Amino acid sequence: MPIVTVTRRLRFNAAHRVHNPALSDEQNAALFGKCNNKNWHGHNYVLEVSVSGEIDAVSGYVVDLGRVRDIVEREVIEKTDHRNLNMEVDYLSGLNPTSENIIVAMWGVIEPALKPARLQRLRLWETENNYVEYEGE
Amino acid sequence: MPIVTVTRRLRFNAAHRVHNPALSDEQNAALFGKCNNKNWHGHNYVLEVSVSGEIDAVSGYVVDLGRVRDIVEREVIEKTDHRNLNMEVDYLSGLNPTSENIIVAMWGVIEPALKPARLQRLRLWETENNYVEYEGE
Amino acid sequence: MPIVTVTRRLRFNAAHRVHNPALSDEQNAALFGKCNNKNWHGHNYVLEVSVSGEIDAVSGYVVDLGRVRDIVEREVIEKTDHRNLNMEVDYLSGLNPTSENIIVAMWGVIEPALKPARLQRLRLWETENNYVEYEGE
Amino acid sequence: MPIVTVTRRLRFNAAHRVHNPALSDEQNAALFGKCNNKNWHGHNYVLEVSVSGEIDAVSGYVVDLGRVRDIVEREVIEKTDHRNLNMEVDYLSGLNPTSENIIVAMWGVIEPALKPARLQRLRLWETENNYVEYEGE
Amino acid sequence: MPIVTVTRRLRFNAAHRVHNPALSDEQNAALFGKCNNKNWHGHNYVLEVSVSGEIDAVSGYVVDLGRVRDIVEREVIEKTDHRNLNMEVDYLSGLNPTSENIIVAMWGVIEPALKPARLQRLRLWETENNYVEYEGE
Amino acid sequence: MPIVTVTRRLRFNAAHRVHNPALSDEQNAALFGKCNNKNWHGHNYVLEVSVSGEIDAVSGYVVDLGRVRDIVEREVIEKTDHRNLNMEVDYLSGLNPTSENIIVAMWGVIEPALKPARLQRLRLWETENNYVEYEGE
Repeated sequence: MPIVTVTRRLRFNAAHRVHNPALSDEQNAALFGKCNNKNWHGHNYVLEVSVSGEIDAVSGYVVDLGRVRDIVEREVIEKTDHRNLNMEVDYLSGLNPTSENIIVAMWGVIEPALKPARLQRLRLWETENNYVEYEGE
Repeated sequence: MPIVTVTRRLRFNAAHRVHNPALSDEQNAALFGKCNNKNWHGHNYVLEVSVSGEIDAVSGYVVDLGRVRDIVEREVIEKTDHRNLNMEVDYLSGLNPTSENIIVAMWGVIEPALKPARLQRLRLWETENNYVEYEGE
Repeated sequence: MPIVTVTRRLRFNAAHRVHNPALSDEQNAALFGKCNNKNWHGHNYVLEVSVSGEIDAVSGYVVDLGRVRDIVEREVIEKTDHRNLNMEVDYLSGLNPTSENIIVAMWGVIEPALKPARLQRLRLWETENNYVEYEGE
Repeated sequence: MPIVTVTRRLRFNAAHRVHNPALSDEQNAALFGKCNNKNWHGHNYVLEVSVSGEIDAVSGYVVDLGRVRDIVEREVIEKTDHRNLNMEVDYLSGLNPTSENIIVAMWGVIEPALKPARLQRLRLWETENNYVEYEGE
Repeated sequence: MPIVTVTRRLRFNAAHRVHNPALSDEQNAALFGKCNNKNWHGHNYVLEVSVSGEIDAVSGYVVDLGRVRDIVEREVIEKTDHRNLNMEVDYLSGLNPTSENIIVAMWGVIEPALKPARLQRLRLWETENNYVEYEGE
Repeated sequence: MPIVTVTRRLRFNAAHRVHNPALSDEQNAALFGKCNNKNWHGHNYVLEVSVSGEIDAVSGYVVDLGRVRDIVEREVIEKTDHRNLNMEVDYLSGLNPTSENIIVAMWGVIEPALKPARLQRLRLWETENNYVEYEGE
């Protein structure tokens, strides 16, 4: 049976600062520069959620992407859109919200919520010029 | 010798409905919602065709992408562009034209036509927010 | 007071054929070629809705774009998305659904629904390579 | 002599909240919804700066777009990128940072700085789905 | 009768250098910097061709965009694509190929060729960050 | 520890011709068609540089993408932007500048310069319709 990967893109707009609370203000400024601005900045993030599996013989789908969208909207987007990533998002609590830390935290939320569908890959665009990818390993 | 993957993007505009002829109308409506509309809807599809291999020492190409384009235009695009995917496309005959089923059927046409070049991956965008990928396994 | 134009983009996916019912099948085929395919084709349309006016001193908005989106979703998108433009859309009834005819018909629906906001321009993308614009004159 | 319009696109990432300090918190929440979140959100803004004029016979340019970029970078982008639009940007001081108010304020900074070149139009994208335009009137 | 503007996008890839042959090499270098590199550089240009007019009652078109595409392909694109803009393009002969000079020269070719259709606007993208517009005046 | 891949996109505009100096002019013309034009053509290239690794516990980064950008700007972009790929780029010297040969040559420059960070993948877009990928094997 062929294995196909299906992907849904979703968007959220959020404020953040790159900041490690275990470091001093001077260390944070030296390490993160303008991304550490204490008054925040923000991005239009794009998240791509990819699920892999065999094609279901009845539906012709690997998974209903409408269901994927609804789950990710509920579990991730609604908690994150128009929010402050350092202060307001439960699954990012205590984390320095770099794209790397965000994507791994989102995997932790999305992967169990999508089961039995198998989450194959997340890709998170912070700007049109940089993105991160994670495959759960 | 380095292995490089080269990709060509192509477009086609088509009508379809997501519909499994083995199910009743009620089952189809319940399973596929507005995508099952009996009067059709349609998309601007984008197909990415990726070929992998060693770089030829004479041409500097893995494969002539103009030749890839011509083959895929002839074998897939001309038969599909401005067509009805449920009714008019020979290689989709009898299939429920979900993106998953389309991409596997296209692989069956493109992979032998490109030989001896090695088809590595197909990616099919149905909208700017969802796409499927298949690597022939 | 400064006059600013604000724009919201919305999407719909639909089937259509370019066909003038007042002509014979032969005339339609000669005039419209593959766009006249009797079994339909389709597109991912993008509609840009632009409203002009003075900035409201209280809200800082020309118009609440969320309200614009809701009105256009209700009046145009919900009636058109995943539909057949020749058969199923009340405000296109009897029209040959070229982009030109669609945009003028959409103006006739959207312009009164947005009042007292002033509709300034519609832009409708049929594919990434062609679009039409209308300013109500 | 032909009149040509030349445009340069520039980017900045910023935090903001839509908030009118003359209103109560309840009024702000009612009027602006999630855009009023007191902990901020943010966007990847794109600014398009358009200058019109005759083509200079020596340079073949209406204006050196490198000079336009340098002026707008210095006068607007450096003061705004990775900043909080409600708190940190001098030319937005006291303003509710809706896209409408931002674009008019930016016009006030850019128009005199570009002289004798004639600023024709600003277009500001807040997200890929909404933008505002201003021509100085 | 409503006036609608219809637009077709076309692409060409070309080499050029920004260079005024009436100036010395030193003057050219001072004025144009790296864009004056004597060994050329190049771009993926995108040209948008806009035609305005009443909608034809029989076709539902302002103009057949397939005919627009064919004319512009023949008159402009085939002469320009994969060419050197300083050396090989008849309608640019003797011109410094800035985007401003290119767009006015293209207008001179396209405007008469499209008649009786009325060319309304050309837009030429040199990169994704800069473009020029011309309306024939 | 999770392994994440981070990617930075960069741009350069360059002239080239596809030409193998070991072949005759007739053979080159037959093999490469208009891409062999002796007066050059050019492209707006986009390069995506992907680095993989564990997330650093202090910075929350796999690697500082600002550092990646600076290295790639210095080692590759500044030597290539607004240049002739056949004549002026040291790391392409003697090569037929197909996208395949360019990407392998860029790997040879970027991979050691980024160490100890691990270069995972390069993707090079020649036009919006074709790109190549290389993972160093």
